[in-house]
Amino acid sequence: MINICEVGPRDGLQNEKEIVSTADKVELINRLIKAGIKKIEAVSFVNPKVVPQMADAEQVMNSIPSHPEVSYSGLVLSRKGLDRALNTKIDTVNVVLAVSEQFNLKNARRSVKQSQEELVEVILETERAGRKPAGVLGTVFGCPYEGSVSIDKVFSIANSFIEAGCKEIVLADTTGMANPLQVKQVTESFVKAFGEEIELRLHFHNTRGLGLANTLAAYQAGVQSFDSSIAGLGGCPFAPKAVGNVCTEDMVNMFHRMSADTNLNLEELIKTSHWIENIIGRPLPGMVSKADCVKV
Amino acid sequence: MINICEVGPRDGLQNEKEIVSTADKVELINRLIKAGIKKIEAVSFVNPKVVPQMADAEQVMNSIPSHPEVSYSGLVLSRKGLDRALNTKIDTVNVVLAVSEQFNLKNARRSVKQSQEELVEVILETERAGRKPAGVLGTVFGCPYEGSVSIDKVFSIANSFIEAGCKEIVLADTTGMANPLQVKQVTESFVKAFGEEIELRLHFHNTRGLGLANTLAAYQAGVQSFDSSIAGLGGCPFAPKAVGNVCTEDMVNMFHRMSADTNLNLEELIKTSHWIENIIGRPLPGMVSKADCVKV
Repeated sequence: MINICEVGPRDGLQNEKEIVSTADKVELINRLIKAGIKKIEAVSFVNPKVVPQMADAEQVMNSIPSHPEVSYSGLVLSRKGLDRALNTKIDTVNVVLAVSEQFNLKNARRSVKQSQEELVEVILETERAGRKPAGVLGTVFGCPYEGSVSIDKVFSIANSFIEAGCKEIVLADTTGMANPLQVKQVTESFVKAFGEEIELRLHFHNTRGLGLANTLAAYQAGVQSFDSSIAGLGGCPFAPKAVGNVCTEDMVNMFHRMSADTNLNLEELIKTSHWIENIIGRPLPGMVSKADCVKV
Repeated sequence: MINICEVGPRDGLQNEKEIVSTADKVELINRLIKAGIKKIEAVSFVNPKVVPQMADAEQVMNSIPSHPEVSYSGLVLSRKGLDRALNTKIDTVNVVLAVSEQFNLKNARRSVKQSQEELVEVILETERAGRKPAGVLGTVFGCPYEGSVSIDKVFSIANSFIEAGCKEIVLADTTGMANPLQVKQVTESFVKAFGEEIELRLHFHNTRGLGLANTLAAYQAGVQSFDSSIAGLGGCPFAPKAVGNVCTEDMVNMFHRMSADTNLNLEELIKTSHWIENIIGRPLPGMVSKADCVKV
């Protein structure tokens, strides 16, 4: 069984210049749940001046339904973010660190070491608060500023998060630099280093069109958990299709055609994709949702 | 070594409503050769009333340079098309048949059996004329009208083309219905049935975003020859990104990042992609060509 974590409401929307209303964010999440999504990165608890689209994180969390089977996660870069997260009903705290120095400095305004130390405390505190911590490592497959990234460094940080209590690690290809061979190698090394009791989730962007090829390579290497974004949300208005997350319904279509079950309703996902495209007001990168109108 | 056959000048352009000038087609081919392309599907010899974009096939063939290392192919659906092809300097005649009845009826106005009989004669005649025949089978991985396609039928037709003299067979996913598991199975069965002395080339469309995942699956199963289209040409104005061929520069980027050589110059391909996008006058589906302007 493939476990898909829908990140559209957070990673997908965060780069949109036009603010999506809280009501529409809540409707998006409700529609995703209707399609069978059980795991949703719903919000991020970051500086609203830097990411205004996520300023209503608390309101979103207050307005979405509590479902026994649905788990909500929120992104946290710091201790301050955790305090906000713990004041909501968030189930999982995604602590995020970019493994490359320059990227983390831009993203979190901290050195990697500073983020690592602060986030180890955040993980411990998350556990004490009875929530679930997940460690998310960004730029694992390459950094647009620094190029290649040391996999030893990735694993050393992953290890510190696991020792602090994370049972789930997400390796993220933040700017779509991964290739299938590298994904296979990194995935196999990870499982060898940390064993199968740590849930490994992969997070791909489709910047260079390799999102589904990388997903396939990870799946072949044994990974069953993936992040994706409805309609491929995450694109930048100035570079259409260039930075979106891998698209949920396209990924689900791939797995279903390969007879790998996701427990998701593809038709409902496509409806939701059309709906959010209408809200955003421009064509989004997802392809399956457009394919049915083309017969030959 | 990966062998890429560039099909942009034929499959890529044929659906474009606006006629691209002969001069621009010739410049496109020259630019592709400069990027290292050795195999080009340059034209098709079909009814110009049905495919007006290809009406200047003879002029294109007369205007492109003869290169000892570059091989030009042209698409032929019938005996009549062959006569036109043999009056040009075409190196390879791509005889095309869609394996599904309804699709072939629309595409070639013949039953599959009629096409098969006529094309076996075309293959024999191509050989007698000292040119190379290649057998192209369409809708191999599914038909939009009939659904799944019998692989026995595919192999039976392939066999008749091979017996007539084809040393190269192209299996085409005409409307992007293939999935990676199916590609692996079909490819492995093909090699088992016909051996490695028959060159197997795969032709994917990216209709559902699976073009590169399917390419990866075929590569893993041992295939080294692929069709692709510069900039992902082949999209339909009414369904952006929905029906294009898999994009040449995106495919080359994938292989290079996996340390699989193509003997192609990616930078020149990207320049050519930008150039043709400017000629066509709208954004084309290729992604690598847009990625460099997006750093994070």
